[in-house]
Amino acid sequence: MARMKFSRLPAHIGVIPDGNRRWAQKRGLPKEAGYEVGVECGFRLYEVCLELGIKEMTFYGFTMDNTKRPPVQKKAFKKACVDAVKILSNRDASLLVIGNPASPNFPRELLPYTKRVTFGRDLIRINFLVNYDWKWDLSHAVGAEGNFVESIASAEIPRVDLLVRWGGRRRLSGFLPVQSVYADMYVLDELWPDFEPEQFYRALKWYETQDVTLGG
Amino acid sequence: MARMKFSRLPAHIGVIPDGNRRWAQKRGLPKEAGYEVGVECGFRLYEVCLELGIKEMTFYGFTMDNTKRPPVQKKAFKKACVDAVKILSNRDASLLVIGNPASPNFPRELLPYTKRVTFGRDLIRINFLVNYDWKWDLSHAVGAEGNFVESIASAEIPRVDLLVRWGGRRRLSGFLPVQSVYADMYVLDELWPDFEPEQFYRALKWYETQDVTLGG
Repeated sequence: MARMKFSRLPAHIGVIPDGNRRWAQKRGLPKEAGYEVGVECGFRLYEVCLELGIKEMTFYGFTMDNTKRPPVQKKAFKKACVDAVKILSNRDASLLVIGNPASPNFPRELLPYTKRVTFGRDLIRINFLVNYDWKWDLSHAVGAEGNFVESIASAEIPRVDLLVRWGGRRRLSGFLPVQSVYADMYVLDELWPDFEPEQFYRALKWYETQDVTLGG
Repeated sequence: MARMKFSRLPAHIGVIPDGNRRWAQKRGLPKEAGYEVGVECGFRLYEVCLELGIKEMTFYGFTMDNTKRPPVQKKAFKKACVDAVKILSNRDASLLVIGNPASPNFPRELLPYTKRVTFGRDLIRINFLVNYDWKWDLSHAVGAEGNFVESIASAEIPRVDLLVRWGGRRRLSGFLPVQSVYADMYVLDELWPDFEPEQFYRALKWYETQDVTLGG
C-alpha cells in the first residue's frame, strides 16, 4: 500500500490485540496457536507506526485474570511476550513493561524492563502491559501521598489518544482505565492474527474526523 | 412499539446523553436549548427501563470540566439536573447523586440526595452524576486504608454492564472509569434530544449477542 497521509495523528496509541484464540479455533488449531502469529502482526504494526512517525504505543500483553486460563495457553502467551521483547531489543525503540512483577506469572526475562530501557536509535516509545491488572495498577494510590494520577503503577504512561481494538468487542477489558478516560476507541471486527495495515489506516482515518474536547 | 423481549438484559446500564448542543445548533437555537428536551428524553428512557425490569441506571449529568463552559449553558444544564430530580421524586425509584458537593457548581437542591433516597415503590435504582469528575472520584483512595474499589467516591455504584452513548462519540469521557472497565459500550449516532425507544432497543439487541468474560 502506498504511504498514507494523515492531517492529524494520535501521539499515543493503545492496542488491544484480541481474537487470537478465535482465530486458531476457526482454523481447527488449538486455541494457543494464535499467539505466535500475533507477535509477527505486532511488528508489522510497529513498522507502520514508525513510518508514520507515531511517538508512543501501548500494547496489551496479558492480564492477571488471563493467567487463570489453561496452562498450555498461559505458557503460549507468556512465551509470545518474551519473544516480542527479544525481537524489539534489536530494533529502535524504548521499552517499559508494566505489570505485577511479584508473581510467578510475570516472566523473569522481562524484569529488567520494568524500568524503561532504550534500544538502538530510540525512535518510538513502547509500553507493554504484562501480567497487568487494573486494580493492581490503581491500588498503588491507596495509602499514597499526593496526586492520584502520579501514584498509580502506570503513572509513567501518558493519556491514550486512540485505542484500537481488534476482534470486535467494544469494551476496555481493564486496559489502563486512567489513561483511557478520554481515548477515542475504534473497534475492528478482524481478529488480531489477521492483521493488515489497511485496518489500522481505517482507524486513523476515523480518528482524523474526531474532535478533542477532553471534557470541556 | 410492541413490548420487546430480550433473552439477556444488563443489570446496570450507564447512559451518556450526549449531543444536546449539536441538536440545538442544527435547529438554529442557542446551544443551551437542548437540555430541557433532554430531561423529557430521560424520563421516556426511564419508562422503557421500568417496563423491561432493568434494575439500575446511571445517568451522566454534568462534569466539573463542563462547568467551564459559558454561564448561560452552565445555568441550563444545572437547571435540567434539578428539574429531573424534582420529577423523579414523584416516581418509583431510589436516587443517589454522585459528584463534588464542595463547590458552588453543585446544585444546593441536590445535597439531600448525596445519600440514597427512596421515592414511591422503589422500582429501580437511579444514580446521577452531577458535578462529577473522574479524578475527584478516584482520588478518594489516596491516603485511604484498605481496598481501592471501596475507597473511591462512587464506591456505592456497582459495575456497569452496558454503557449506551448517544451523539456518536466513541469514548468514555471520564464516565465512572472503575465501574466501566468491563462495560460493553454501544454508541448511537442519534443526538440525545432525538431519543426514541427504538435506539435503546438496538443497544439491547446488540448486548444480547455479547459474551461476558470479565477478563477471564
